[in-house]
Amino acid sequence: MKITNIQNTQIAVGDPPLLNAAGLHAPYALRIIVEVITDAGIIGLSEIPGSEKIYNSLEKLKTHLIGQDVFELNAIKKLIQEKFGKHEDQRGVAPWDQRLLVHLFSAMEVACLDCIGKKLNRPVVDLLGGRSRDKVPFAAYLFYKYEGAGGELGFGMEKNTSGWLKARQEEAVTPEQIVSQAKAMCEAFGFQSIKLKGGAFPPDLECDSMLALYEAFGHEVPLRLDPNAIWSLETGIKYGKKMEGILEYYEDPVRGQENMALLSKEVDIPLATNMCTTSFNDIPSSIQLGSEHIILSDHHFWGGLRASMELNKICQTFGRGFSMHSNSHLGISMAAMVHLGAAVPHLDYALDTHYPWQVDEVIKGGKIKIEDGLAKIPDGPGLGVELDREQLQKLHENFLACGLKERNDEIEMKKVIPDWQFELQRW
Amino acid sequence: MKITNIQNTQIAVGDPPLLNAAGLHAPYALRIIVEVITDAGIIGLSEIPGSEKIYNSLEKLKTHLIGQDVFELNAIKKLIQEKFGKHEDQRGVAPWDQRLLVHLFSAMEVACLDCIGKKLNRPVVDLLGGRSRDKVPFAAYLFYKYEGAGGELGFGMEKNTSGWLKARQEEAVTPEQIVSQAKAMCEAFGFQSIKLKGGAFPPDLECDSMLALYEAFGHEVPLRLDPNAIWSLETGIKYGKKMEGILEYYEDPVRGQENMALLSKEVDIPLATNMCTTSFNDIPSSIQLGSEHIILSDHHFWGGLRASMELNKICQTFGRGFSMHSNSHLGISMAAMVHLGAAVPHLDYALDTHYPWQVDEVIKGGKIKIEDGLAKIPDGPGLGVELDREQLQKLHENFLACGLKERNDEIEMKKVIPDWQFELQRW
Repeated sequence: MKITNIQNTQIAVGDPPLLNAAGLHAPYALRIIVEVITDAGIIGLSEIPGSEKIYNSLEKLKTHLIGQDVFELNAIKKLIQEKFGKHEDQRGVAPWDQRLLVHLFSAMEVACLDCIGKKLNRPVVDLLGGRSRDKVPFAAYLFYKYEGAGGELGFGMEKNTSGWLKARQEEAVTPEQIVSQAKAMCEAFGFQSIKLKGGAFPPDLECDSMLALYEAFGHEVPLRLDPNAIWSLETGIKYGKKMEGILEYYEDPVRGQENMALLSKEVDIPLATNMCTTSFNDIPSSIQLGSEHIILSDHHFWGGLRASMELNKICQTFGRGFSMHSNSHLGISMAAMVHLGAAVPHLDYALDTHYPWQVDEVIKGGKIKIEDGLAKIPDGPGLGVELDREQLQKLHENFLACGLKERNDEIEMKKVIPDWQFELQRW
Repeated sequence: MKITNIQNTQIAVGDPPLLNAAGLHAPYALRIIVEVITDAGIIGLSEIPGSEKIYNSLEKLKTHLIGQDVFELNAIKKLIQEKFGKHEDQRGVAPWDQRLLVHLFSAMEVACLDCIGKKLNRPVVDLLGGRSRDKVPFAAYLFYKYEGAGGELGFGMEKNTSGWLKARQEEAVTPEQIVSQAKAMCEAFGFQSIKLKGGAFPPDLECDSMLALYEAFGHEVPLRLDPNAIWSLETGIKYGKKMEGILEYYEDPVRGQENMALLSKEVDIPLATNMCTTSFNDIPSSIQLGSEHIILSDHHFWGGLRASMELNKICQTFGRGFSMHSNSHLGISMAAMVHLGAAVPHLDYALDTHYPWQVDEVIKGGKIKIEDGLAKIPDGPGLGVELDREQLQKLHENFLACGLKERNDEIEMKKVIPDWQFELQRW
């Protein structure tokens, strides 16, 4: 099954004004939808974070990949390495990963696996060894945010007055507002675990929000806080101690494996990461230092679904927990996450997803359902999702109109607070 | 594609009187040929080491696996764990691995992958991410041996007077005889690397054999010695120092990760293992101690081809080499080894195989060819091999007639040297 063409489409997806350590989400999150077209008449899909650099690289790669067989994933990986450098580039200091190679691998691998699954008439989970579970647990992902729903250009962004769609638009800058966001989200999706994206406000406010969530939800709903590595070791220890017995895990409170390892000795909460240990190259020192207890995978950043399965085995082998990181995304990424989450033999934690924050969709039939905090493996072969070409076109027009070329939360934040600056360590 | 039946056939394969640390190979090596029969009319094959325990367990497993889907490998593994214990059993002190679970996983996984490949009309290598190379390098595997070709019951064991088939029957108990065995084997198969199974004679004789091989083949042909963990640390260091600059790697000179780590500090030769680090559970301490440089995988002992791919990733991640261990085997195991060897992205060493020592075969068309030391991926879907039912029947009759129930090299050795006893550390 040879690749005859690849269609990369840049899209802009309405995204609310969510706050994080790097600033503020723009009204649109950028994604790229990749279609791998084969001589079998089968089209494979994938979705990855959008940026000019990734899009241009995907376009440049096209001529090299046409003629390749979708089964030859090891060869495709080698080819990408040859064209874009054998050594992995740097992830950068932002909460999201900015490496090129892993995005390219992921984009191609997921789409090729979708082709293979469609050809075989089997779901992608079956290409990863089959399901270890039928439904995949996700966590509520809370954000401090300003009022508004994003997507200023108007597609699918009409004001909604009921349930989660209403709550999604509301301001959340206090512990009380965070608790009400959590209640609305959990009511809508039945989440059984809750994560708060921190690093946006001073630590005492964020710690108070966790204590308020604990009071509201009790011990049965595991809680997590993610300050995105913007706290000093001293701050991380101080507030960590206050949240012992409250948090299920403490995600990237500080920057770097050394600091995580030091914090780990002082605070009795498991540490999770998607910023300090983010590649296979980082694993040996993570293990040696004992810097984290849980690795938050992300198939977009670890080079695909099979690489994430390998990471899962490494976590199991070394007694590390495994869960999943997320960025703003649509249903193709969600489907891939669900197939992976269903396949991994070693999973003790509900996965992160931004999915409830995005009301746009690019797959037919609307959003993949999350009920009781669980998502079912989509029916049908491959990823089990089909592209809604009308929506794709709309979201591509959004992209052309919105003028964004890459994610930059600092620029967005400066529009609200002109002298705001990203800091590696703020508190 | 559901499993409708499983056929397990015990066979006895003619095997020459090869010497090793555990004694002497019996005239027959025991194997089990597993046929997984599906409702798609497709039959998947695998081959694993034979023993009464493994055979009985496979038979017991049959009723539980009938009705399972061949794609649901994670579920099948879970089911095997539930039926035979969640915790891995012990490998034992012999050079070969005696754990049950990994054999069962491997038997079922390889046969299921063969089914999937046949269904898809793709080779098994394509189910492992596709080929990283087209041909797989193997090493000459030399043995000290007594005169004779094994297989006393006469099937396929006629005296042969030319080339390798002649050399295969000859005694090899001196350095000169080892060199001639090596020359005959390399001439017949074109091997570019040479391994000597040691642990059979006093270390000075074995060391002399390596020096004689070095003199005969020069530096271009990498050499390895495997004393099967029967040497003391002192002996391992003493002879290791004599072979610095001569050996490509030094395989299990001593017993246990601690001893390997101590030896590693004294001797400047990479250490390889299939006895000290033999399961995923052993990996963390191997990494922590730095006990080995190279892990010798074996899909029969590591729980299948996908597990071996995961081991390959672990080796790559932690800067360990990866190669492959072997026991006496036929073409189905060989095919699986070639598919795996072609798929693994990380491979710097030629693989071990006993394959030239076995003249019996159970696949149609005779033995898989090794030319220039390389084996090509078999043509055709799945493993690319078909069962020769006439040969299978013959080899099964061998099994029934020979009376062997499990491998026990000590018993065989006592037939030659009545007071011989296995020792954990002989020299």
